[in-house]
This record gives sequence, C-alpha cells and structure tokens, in this order.
Amino acid sequence: MPLPSNINQLIAHFASLPGLGQKTAERLVFYLLKQDRAVLKNFAESMLGILDRVGHCAVCGQFSEEKLCPICANPRRDHSVICVIAEEMDISALEKAGEFKGLYHVLGNVLSPTEGITPDRLNIKNLLARITATPATVKEIILALNPTIEGETTCLYLTKLIKNSAPQIKITKLARGLPQGGDLEYADEITLANAFRGRTVV
Amino acid sequence: MPLPSNINQLIAHFASLPGLGQKTAERLVFYLLKQDRAVLKNFAESMLGILDRVGHCAVCGQFSEEKLCPICANPRRDHSVICVIAEEMDISALEKAGEFKGLYHVLGNVLSPTEGITPDRLNIKNLLARITATPATVKEIILALNPTIEGETTCLYLTKLIKNSAPQIKITKLARGLPQGGDLEYADEITLANAFRGRTVV
Repeated sequence: MPLPSNINQLIAHFASLPGLGQKTAERLVFYLLKQDRAVLKNFAESMLGILDRVGHCAVCGQFSEEKLCPICANPRRDHSVICVIAEEMDISALEKAGEFKGLYHVLGNVLSPTEGITPDRLNIKNLLARITATPATVKEIILALNPTIEGETTCLYLTKLIKNSAPQIKITKLARGLPQGGDLEYADEITLANAFRGRTVV
Repeated sequence: MPLPSNINQLIAHFASLPGLGQKTAERLVFYLLKQDRAVLKNFAESMLGILDRVGHCAVCGQFSEEKLCPICANPRRDHSVICVIAEEMDISALEKAGEFKGLYHVLGNVLSPTEGITPDRLNIKNLLARITATPATVKEIILALNPTIEGETTCLYLTKLIKNSAPQIKITKLARGLPQGGDLEYADEITLANAFRGRTVV
C-alpha cells in the first residue's frame, strides 16, 4: 500500500515487537495517527528518555536510573536473602505477589547451550561477588527460575557454584505444585507428581 | 513495582494502545530494553518523523507526506471512480485485494449520533466538492463502508446527498454475501439473506 515512508517505518517497528503482526502494527499506528499530536510526541520522548537515563543497578542488574535500584537501596528490605531470577521482568510478577521482602539478582537469561547461552553470558560473576563479600550478610539464595529444562539446568549449575564458594548459604527454590484455580483433571503428570512430593501437612 | 519512571511512562504509553493490556505493554517494553539502543532510538525517531512530515492528502484525506497522496497523484489510476471509506486504514485492506484501480475518499468515521458523530464531523464537504467540480470527471461512487448499522446509515445519508448534488453519478456499494472460505452452516441469517438476494448467474 502506498503509505508515506515514515508511517511504513513506524509500522515496521511495531511489527518487529514480539507477538505483534503486520495487521496489528498497522492498527496501532493508525490509532496513534488519529490521536492528538502530543500523544505521539510524548510516546517518542519517553522512549528517548529511557535511552538517556536508564541503566542497570550495579548490584542486582535490574533496570535503574540511579546507581542502585530502589529495591537494593531500600534499607527496609531483607538484605540477607537474594532471589535469583532469569529476567528483569520477573521482578514485576514477584513484587506483585507481595510475598518476598529480600533483594533480587537478575541473571539476564537461563543456560541454554543449544542457543549459545553459556555461563559466561549470564550475570553470575556479580552474584558470586555478592555472596562472598565481607562481612557475609547473605544467608539464603532463592532460585526463582522458570520450571523448564533450561531453568532446572541453571538451578543445578548455580547450586554447585554457590556451594563451592559459600557453603554456609542456604539454597532454596520455589515450590512446585498445582497452580491456584487449577483443575486436577487437567494438570499434567509432572505437576501432579511435584504436588505429591511437595505435599504439606494441614 | 519500583521501576524507573521513564520505563513506567513507556509502559503506560504502550498500554494505552487499543488491544494492549498492562502485561503485554510490560513485555514489549522489556523486550525493547534488551535490544540494541539503536532500535529504541530509531523507533522513537520514526514517531517524531511522522509528527514532522505526515499530513493529509488535500483531495482524499489519506495520510500523506506530499500535498497529494501517491494514489491521487497517480495518472494511471481511474479518476472517474471514487471509493468512499470510513478510515484511512481501510485503504490498506482494499489495496491488498488489488481489485480497485480508482481513487479513494476518507470520511474519517461513520455516522453515529449516540457517539456524537454527526455529518459535520465527517469529511463530506470535500467529497461534494470533488463530485461537483468542473469538468465533471467522476462517474461512479462506490460506498465501501462496514456492513454495520452505522455503516448502512452513513450509506443512506451519502446516497441522498450525492443524488441531490450530482444526480448523474452512479452510486454503488460493495456486495454482501458469503465470505470466501466461510461455512454455510455457521453463516448468520442476514448474511445468508444477502447472499440469496445478491445471487449471480453461473
């Protein structure tokens, strides 16, 4: 379709985002074109604002505008527990649950040799620095990685590494079992087996 | 979640787009944050490029960087047929079909008194100017509006108006019937009734 090249470019940018196809991208761009010009301007400026001002927290690796992210800088968080996660976005889900009050550590990914994600591509060096720092403040590491083969592999790898560097630290991982609102009938075998193994006394 | 304000702003911008929720918006922004900085920069710049350079075609009302859009400026298109559409985006779908070789006219919306869309909010004045211009080049107006109540109402309104201003012009509307790949069994009554009424000789 003979559209102005700037519009086609913007459609291509939207279409390159995960989960958005050409048609959705067109719909979004035409929607934006119908809004006040200020909407498009603010949208573009908030993107540029990220470029100028957002970096990574020096401790946990989360996106941050300051040297330390608000969680690492917060003295009321429990600095003796570190929850290890694969991606920055996982913090969002975990914080919404409101259960965890410690600190985080963002690996950046999980091990996946077939995709070329080897240990040196993960933010592991900083994690080891945190748990071997003096004075030793960290008492527990919670491995909160996805329940997938890659996630489990990464858990095994990190467990070995942490036990070698700081054997006094307790290592835990998130419970496996039935999801809230789930249906026994439709649960897969591995989930059911995990739910049996991890059963709790009522 | 304590995220840098620039990231939250960008998430809010994405979440304000039609069909995107908070979770999808977060996913898209975190995806962008993981790309090369150039990706975000180009994305933002193509938005600003639209602000600077994209306006409307003086004839048909489609988005355009020039005074005339490429379709209106193309002498090889049939300037005697005008296809009236509700929104700029409809041109994209119709051009992909590749059947129509005439010009377009963008109304901007369809009549909807309950939503406050009255005739003066539509780009009708320009349409009348086009069909009453001398020399009279327009021979047919195709009303290609959505097969909805609002679309039909707009068709009726325009038909009356065009017949008053330029009675020599043929007014047509797109055929109603079964969609390609559709299933008789699942077609609704109105579609089936339309398919009967519009049946063609084989």
